[in-house]
Amino acid sequence: MIIVFKPHATEQDIDHVTDRLRELGLRTQISLGEERTIIGVIGDERILQGEPLSIFPGVESVTPILAPWKLVSREFQPHDSIIDVCGVTIGGRRLAIMAGPCAVEKLEVTVEIAHAVKAAGSTILRGGAYKPRTSPYSFQGLGREGLDYLLAAKEQTGLPVVSEILDPRDIDVFLEKADVIQVGARNMQNFELLKEVGAYDKPVLLKRGLSATVKEFLLSAEYILSRGNRNVMLCERGIRTFETHYRNTLDLSAVPSLKELTHLPVIVDPSHATGRWSLVAPMAKAAIAAGADGLLIEVHSNPECAMCDGEESLKPSRFNNLMIDLKKVAEAVGREL
Amino acid sequence: MIIVFKPHATEQDIDHVTDRLRELGLRTQISLGEERTIIGVIGDERILQGEPLSIFPGVESVTPILAPWKLVSREFQPHDSIIDVCGVTIGGRRLAIMAGPCAVEKLEVTVEIAHAVKAAGSTILRGGAYKPRTSPYSFQGLGREGLDYLLAAKEQTGLPVVSEILDPRDIDVFLEKADVIQVGARNMQNFELLKEVGAYDKPVLLKRGLSATVKEFLLSAEYILSRGNRNVMLCERGIRTFETHYRNTLDLSAVPSLKELTHLPVIVDPSHATGRWSLVAPMAKAAIAAGADGLLIEVHSNPECAMCDGEESLKPSRFNNLMIDLKKVAEAVGREL
Amino acid sequence: MIIVFKPHATEQDIDHVTDRLRELGLRTQISLGEERTIIGVIGDERILQGEPLSIFPGVESVTPILAPWKLVSREFQPHDSIIDVCGVTIGGRRLAIMAGPCAVEKLEVTVEIAHAVKAAGSTILRGGAYKPRTSPYSFQGLGREGLDYLLAAKEQTGLPVVSEILDPRDIDVFLEKADVIQVGARNMQNFELLKEVGAYDKPVLLKRGLSATVKEFLLSAEYILSRGNRNVMLCERGIRTFETHYRNTLDLSAVPSLKELTHLPVIVDPSHATGRWSLVAPMAKAAIAAGADGLLIEVHSNPECAMCDGEESLKPSRFNNLMIDLKKVAEAVGREL
Amino acid sequence: MIIVFKPHATEQDIDHVTDRLRELGLRTQISLGEERTIIGVIGDERILQGEPLSIFPGVESVTPILAPWKLVSREFQPHDSIIDVCGVTIGGRRLAIMAGPCAVEKLEVTVEIAHAVKAAGSTILRGGAYKPRTSPYSFQGLGREGLDYLLAAKEQTGLPVVSEILDPRDIDVFLEKADVIQVGARNMQNFELLKEVGAYDKPVLLKRGLSATVKEFLLSAEYILSRGNRNVMLCERGIRTFETHYRNTLDLSAVPSLKELTHLPVIVDPSHATGRWSLVAPMAKAAIAAGADGLLIEVHSNPECAMCDGEESLKPSRFNNLMIDLKKVAEAVGREL
Repeated sequence: MIIVFKPHATEQDIDHVTDRLRELGLRTQISLGEERTIIGVIGDERILQGEPLSIFPGVESVTPILAPWKLVSREFQPHDSIIDVCGVTIGGRRLAIMAGPCAVEKLEVTVEIAHAVKAAGSTILRGGAYKPRTSPYSFQGLGREGLDYLLAAKEQTGLPVVSEILDPRDIDVFLEKADVIQVGARNMQNFELLKEVGAYDKPVLLKRGLSATVKEFLLSAEYILSRGNRNVMLCERGIRTFETHYRNTLDLSAVPSLKELTHLPVIVDPSHATGRWSLVAPMAKAAIAAGADGLLIEVHSNPECAMCDGEESLKPSRFNNLMIDLKKVAEAVGREL
Repeated sequence: MIIVFKPHATEQDIDHVTDRLRELGLRTQISLGEERTIIGVIGDERILQGEPLSIFPGVESVTPILAPWKLVSREFQPHDSIIDVCGVTIGGRRLAIMAGPCAVEKLEVTVEIAHAVKAAGSTILRGGAYKPRTSPYSFQGLGREGLDYLLAAKEQTGLPVVSEILDPRDIDVFLEKADVIQVGARNMQNFELLKEVGAYDKPVLLKRGLSATVKEFLLSAEYILSRGNRNVMLCERGIRTFETHYRNTLDLSAVPSLKELTHLPVIVDPSHATGRWSLVAPMAKAAIAAGADGLLIEVHSNPECAMCDGEESLKPSRFNNLMIDLKKVAEAVGREL
Repeated sequence: MIIVFKPHATEQDIDHVTDRLRELGLRTQISLGEERTIIGVIGDERILQGEPLSIFPGVESVTPILAPWKLVSREFQPHDSIIDVCGVTIGGRRLAIMAGPCAVEKLEVTVEIAHAVKAAGSTILRGGAYKPRTSPYSFQGLGREGLDYLLAAKEQTGLPVVSEILDPRDIDVFLEKADVIQVGARNMQNFELLKEVGAYDKPVLLKRGLSATVKEFLLSAEYILSRGNRNVMLCERGIRTFETHYRNTLDLSAVPSLKELTHLPVIVDPSHATGRWSLVAPMAKAAIAAGADGLLIEVHSNPECAMCDGEESLKPSRFNNLMIDLKKVAEAVGREL
Repeated sequence: MIIVFKPHATEQDIDHVTDRLRELGLRTQISLGEERTIIGVIGDERILQGEPLSIFPGVESVTPILAPWKLVSREFQPHDSIIDVCGVTIGGRRLAIMAGPCAVEKLEVTVEIAHAVKAAGSTILRGGAYKPRTSPYSFQGLGREGLDYLLAAKEQTGLPVVSEILDPRDIDVFLEKADVIQVGARNMQNFELLKEVGAYDKPVLLKRGLSATVKEFLLSAEYILSRGNRNVMLCERGIRTFETHYRNTLDLSAVPSLKELTHLPVIVDPSHATGRWSLVAPMAKAAIAAGADGLLIEVHSNPECAMCDGEESLKPSRFNNLMIDLKKVAEAVGREL
């Protein structure tokens, strides 16, 4: 951490800061510049998080120099993490395609879609049983029954299942019935939920919050790893900007940036990001070209009657065509489907 | 709801939409314009939320015309809601000033600050026992013990207490020990938590999410009211923008806008919004001038050693001066402290 | 345009609006709904732009239903525009790669880079002679001399030249020396400049403003086309969000969206968007995968000593490798380099 | 400037950076930390702007420690600048209220509004002659004729006139006919225009760009001052965020922040910021409470027929009432109207 003093800071001001740092067990190195005095802090600056050094008299600015995370960093683990989900690996050369309906609705429809996405080449089935909806008057999901439908679809197709948890009180049912637990964008900073899913080794798919920075995203992942669960994959799903032509703004620069900073796999969800089915295919291809390790795509056999997010769902035939195109893009960037 | 068709939409396209609307129990009115055909939907369009009409063949756009909320609206209740917190009223002519430390740390410090903010004119004591922190390595709060310290401070000063809940599993302890339950910005769309606090009549202070629209904010409040709890106050606390000179951007236009749209009281938190103590006083005055019903302000007897958000905490003496200034601004806009 | 009235709007309110619309030469269609009266406006609603109908008594909301642009739309011209720049076509199956230094510095360096980017497969040379710099103390470009260096590089390599104009008073020198005139992000709404470049048929590369919506971007292009110049290409170059890990957030969803809405070619600039050379290659590939018609990439033979934006410049060897990779991605999506 | 090296940076890497800094005439101070080596740069770091030190091998991050501006800073001039506009002072205890129509339309209307705003207590007349409009099909202003109408209104009322310039080629007519030259939000980074208005001593009102940071805003002002014109006032007018309920988000935290950083007067425009007349009065009061030195308010005698921004214009009677209220708020914060 670098502490810069104001031009007219007194010796007393500098001593006051130095004393506080010493109290906290840190050593300092003082630099008397032409215009400013500067203190460099030596030692683990993570213990300074939350210390309000910027309000000490005479201080002009405080700049951290170490990343605030540890376990998720490339420095801590240089090689890519590869996560095993019932035999399907996520994070290696082979791309993971997770597809299925936004919300689980009926048993037959769920099984039908599962067969369709498997036939097209998906390796994981996605489906929402508990739905976080902006309005209390919208369909809130089938809950536990929805998870049972997914399980039935898994039995018939062999596809492992990813589904979203909303409430820490549901952890047991998810440990039993889901293969990957999704923590949604709205819960990226629901720290009690992060702690809960961090206490087991069940794989977790953590979505980036609507206005979360890359830094906050990694710190939320760090919450899970710091509780012991190393099986975390990150999912970019669009951020909120001023643009209203699409639902969110898919931030693909986050993909290579995350791959530089962390060893965790990075998945992209072009369906929620755009909210428009016609944009899903181009953005899915772009995500793979940018280096994503997998995709999360909404597929519905009858989008017009979907109970949630039908606007962005692909019909199985379109999804099948997309998979054919994705195979070519994957090969062009040295990956495979 | 208004459905606009593309220039070359066929009769079949229009019938297809009309049939679906009829299935859902809604009536329609068709308008054949020069460039476009338009359908107006008659009946409660709230049942159309989530219906993906925009992907029906031939449809160009779908525009809702009714607000998606009901119980929070001025149409539903034209007069201001006034909430009673142990005899302190929130929402009327008298402004509510809630002050105290960001995080509860020690019993003596908590009691000392409570006495100080009461002396300056505050009517409610704020303090965080469970702290949502971006990093897992930051101080996470004293938990239940922190609530006990607040209770002790209440006993000595008579000030009711507002504190933040993070986990629905803690509802009982909050019902017992807190007078107002705060749902923080990061949990504004933690719908399970909203449902939980909606099940009782304990007053709730709901903070706006970092990137929540006014619409989403009101829908989150609607979650609470729709479960039966009418004692909800809203709190603007800054939104996330590109500006980095202050922590967040306090959106004061939300204050008069919310007062137009809803009958619920509107509180402003200039401390978290700015993240800098030197900006708290001007923004507190601005909030009152803009029509806020109260303020949430961080006060700490020793900000340099605060375990959380010391940068934005006012010392008791500065807080006292601010209260003197606020009294003048309140009078200038027809309110009182 | 759809005008929705408040629940208690009077007949007088409705007549008042209808009268105003009639004055403006528009016909109306009134719909008496259960909760609201609605007026549909028949005729060219573009003449209503700027009419403050929302403040008429009794009016609740006003919603346009037609796009506010005309000449740039797919409705106006369904087929893709293809622009000819000295024999290089932009907008067809073949991708246009425009590469070169951020700022033109020295004659020899400019010529050297031009040879390098040509060898790697670029078809257009980019280079800034007039530089819009945030600080008055930064290098402001060589001006007219810089254009002469570009011209010299063109003579030696045959590559047409794109360069940015800042001032309408420089139009003559650009008409003489540049092959494509760039209007930069900061000038996207410098309407006097748009009118000036619209008065000739010299190709224009129009960059999206830092916080411009897709709608505003298209309206700025409409300014140029409405003055007579049809040779316009659009360039997505990153928008401003809260994220600080990269300079801007490249909004690739804009690419397929623009391709849906307009017939104009769409170029992507991954260099300015990310501000980091290590992100340029993945985002360039992603842009092509998303459907872009070309790229604008910064290349410098010695980025460490570049006078502008060295952080994001690729060395010729890296650029060469990128071009090899891009060829594969282009083929995967049915395009060619 | 602080340069932090990566953990495994070599001695050669460090020497390479040190050599470059020495070449540029700067001295360095090296600090060998436990985890990182750090270089502190001694001397005027403004000459490092644009130097891409972050791409030097082994460098992890580069952090400036001095503000990039000089003439606008409080360090350069600790006391408030007070600008004289034909005898009206801006920047002192007395608030400056600039009011009038968005666009100048007809001579009689202009004069009528000028009389009305003067009667209510305004000291400066605002009015747009050249209008920057998003769409080429919207009313573009009367141009030079509009300036003549403003001059006529000035002759009758004695109110000095502020009006917006769009094109550097119009500088002479503005020097002759306007008393304050406004540079609008869309032109905040039209550097050629900034240089032009900086070449004279005619007062300039510089509006903050829609997505400009406080830092960029001050650097744009620095452009003007660095050319010799010290008579600059800043105007906060709302920034672009994801919120759509109001046109822009008025960023009042910028007011006390700018007052800390610069000696220049700070004006607030609540009309353009909100785009809704019902929000103008509360936000005008809030701006004064936050410490603004003045306001820019749109007033029109017949908003329903205004050719531009009628939605946000106050009728003279409402404006008169607002002025009465503002007087009270001004007094409450130690200012006068």
